[in-house]
Amino acid sequence: MKKIALGIDIGGTNTAIGTVAQDGTVINKTSIPTPTDGDVDSYITSIKTAVKELINSLKSLDSDTEVLGIGIGAPNANYHKGTIEHAPNLAFKGVVPLVAKLKEAMPEMKYISLTNDANAAALGELIYGGGRGMKDFIMYTLGTGVGSGIIVNGDLVYGHDGFAGECGHTMLVPGGRVCGCGVNGHLESYCSAGGIKRTAFELMAYYNANDSLLADKSFRDLEAKDVSIAAAKGDKIALETFRVTGDYLARGIADSIHHTAPEAVFLFGGPTAAGDLLMNPLKEALSKYLLPTFKNSNGEPKAKILISQLKAGDAAIVGASALVWKEEEKN
Amino acid sequence: MKKIALGIDIGGTNTAIGTVAQDGTVINKTSIPTPTDGDVDSYITSIKTAVKELINSLKSLDSDTEVLGIGIGAPNANYHKGTIEHAPNLAFKGVVPLVAKLKEAMPEMKYISLTNDANAAALGELIYGGGRGMKDFIMYTLGTGVGSGIIVNGDLVYGHDGFAGECGHTMLVPGGRVCGCGVNGHLESYCSAGGIKRTAFELMAYYNANDSLLADKSFRDLEAKDVSIAAAKGDKIALETFRVTGDYLARGIADSIHHTAPEAVFLFGGPTAAGDLLMNPLKEALSKYLLPTFKNSNGEPKAKILISQLKAGDAAIVGASALVWKEEEKN
Repeated sequence: MKKIALGIDIGGTNTAIGTVAQDGTVINKTSIPTPTDGDVDSYITSIKTAVKELINSLKSLDSDTEVLGIGIGAPNANYHKGTIEHAPNLAFKGVVPLVAKLKEAMPEMKYISLTNDANAAALGELIYGGGRGMKDFIMYTLGTGVGSGIIVNGDLVYGHDGFAGECGHTMLVPGGRVCGCGVNGHLESYCSAGGIKRTAFELMAYYNANDSLLADKSFRDLEAKDVSIAAAKGDKIALETFRVTGDYLARGIADSIHHTAPEAVFLFGGPTAAGDLLMNPLKEALSKYLLPTFKNSNGEPKAKILISQLKAGDAAIVGASALVWKEEEKN
Repeated sequence: MKKIALGIDIGGTNTAIGTVAQDGTVINKTSIPTPTDGDVDSYITSIKTAVKELINSLKSLDSDTEVLGIGIGAPNANYHKGTIEHAPNLAFKGVVPLVAKLKEAMPEMKYISLTNDANAAALGELIYGGGRGMKDFIMYTLGTGVGSGIIVNGDLVYGHDGFAGECGHTMLVPGGRVCGCGVNGHLESYCSAGGIKRTAFELMAYYNANDSLLADKSFRDLEAKDVSIAAAKGDKIALETFRVTGDYLARGIADSIHHTAPEAVFLFGGPTAAGDLLMNPLKEALSKYLLPTFKNSNGEPKAKILISQLKAGDAAIVGASALVWKEEEKN
């Protein structure tokens, strides 16, 4: 019997659902709209239908398949209770007992569990990616926001209430930029895709850089990837943006390393496409901010600073499915 | 048979050694000088002699006693390897295999292990103190420096290389005060006893406060406890010092809560004697800095902010001895 797991990624607009083999390969996948009317029960029915279709199509190809369970990545997800709680980007009101409802709808599933998307990504890295064989690492996911997942002693840190791993809300600059959460100065407002754009605009203003390749786009139109493209062309503002972003990120990652002393820190998401433009200043700045205990004798961080091995397009489904293998491992 | 554990606290000047009952009571204790010549072998002999005397005197009172092992708290201690590594405040050079040498000297001990003093304090809180029954909490120790220990899922976080839990070196103020470790802006330089003194001096300078009760002492002579005394008398600079310190501490503790979502944060050490003068501004500032997910509906932190239940005088020995019960529990 080939064992497979289902991964579900609940986003603000769409819910991606896929079947994942034990090596992390997505076998088939689909997508349904995430409800905008907050109707949980019809959403459960839609998920059940989509899951059945995926499994049926899978079994028609290979009947020798056992579906172990479903892992779900979602915003404001409480692993302990299996609930999504007061998620600002979803239409569901209050606390949604998603796992309980899915278990009721699909009692044949051995495991159904959920966590937030960045925690799921960290589990994905642990089960299928560069974290295989590691016991202690941290994953930062850089995108619209900055999420994170912390692996300690081979398992994800969920914390007392199931919401651990919000390193995107490390305080970087007291009284600094307004973060999406309303607090000033959090890492997310500096190191997310939007944070990179904000840095580029601050730097253009500071240097009065009318000659920058970034100077012909409005604030609303500029995207982080425009900064990457300009940096590749040698634009000074764009290069300086990545240098500054690496420094900001290093402050937060240094704090994380000081907390849990990981073997590695993985970065995931769009901004990592900048490669060494981001990674080199990040590593350099880490050498400045880390305690000597956390550095090698050459001054470099002991922790490996690595780009995630998860494939960008499938990472959310794959990460979510990793929950299933982790539950199987615990049992 | 009554089981007891030995706790050893290695400080820069003295090494405190005590026997500890399973309820955390110190039964008897002694102290030997920590060597200033770096001679490890004669130090091991001195420890062995002191341990034997303590045990003999204990058994003369109650022969029905079983000594389980030794737990050691020391600076720059590597739990995984049982070593003290490049400790700047100790005369030992390089990497000292303390556990291996003690095991050789006292093969009758079932467990000998070591960790840094703040980690040991956190284990002490878990085994004997306010953390009993909790699975996730963080302990901050405020003293000459600021140490910390992180409990996740009922066990101490040691990290990949055994040095986890250095929350005192969270970056609070980029480009801020020079920390003892050489980096600018770390929490320790704001929230240690010396940090509190530095804040008091900054505030006197800022307000030109010639009328403050703190204004008649030199920088060298002023101590954190003078600030407590002046605050109790209503001195404005002293009160403002604790308010500001509470705010600084809240930034670091918010970062820690965002990392591991603990049930509680315990504070230990001299500055906690200020009580509500420190705790109230700390809790208030936490409400400002935490993500909504980590707050109750009234805006207060979900995590309990508590003062340690370990007794100040014995905490180092008691904390170190907790390592032994933890090892026994794992076996």
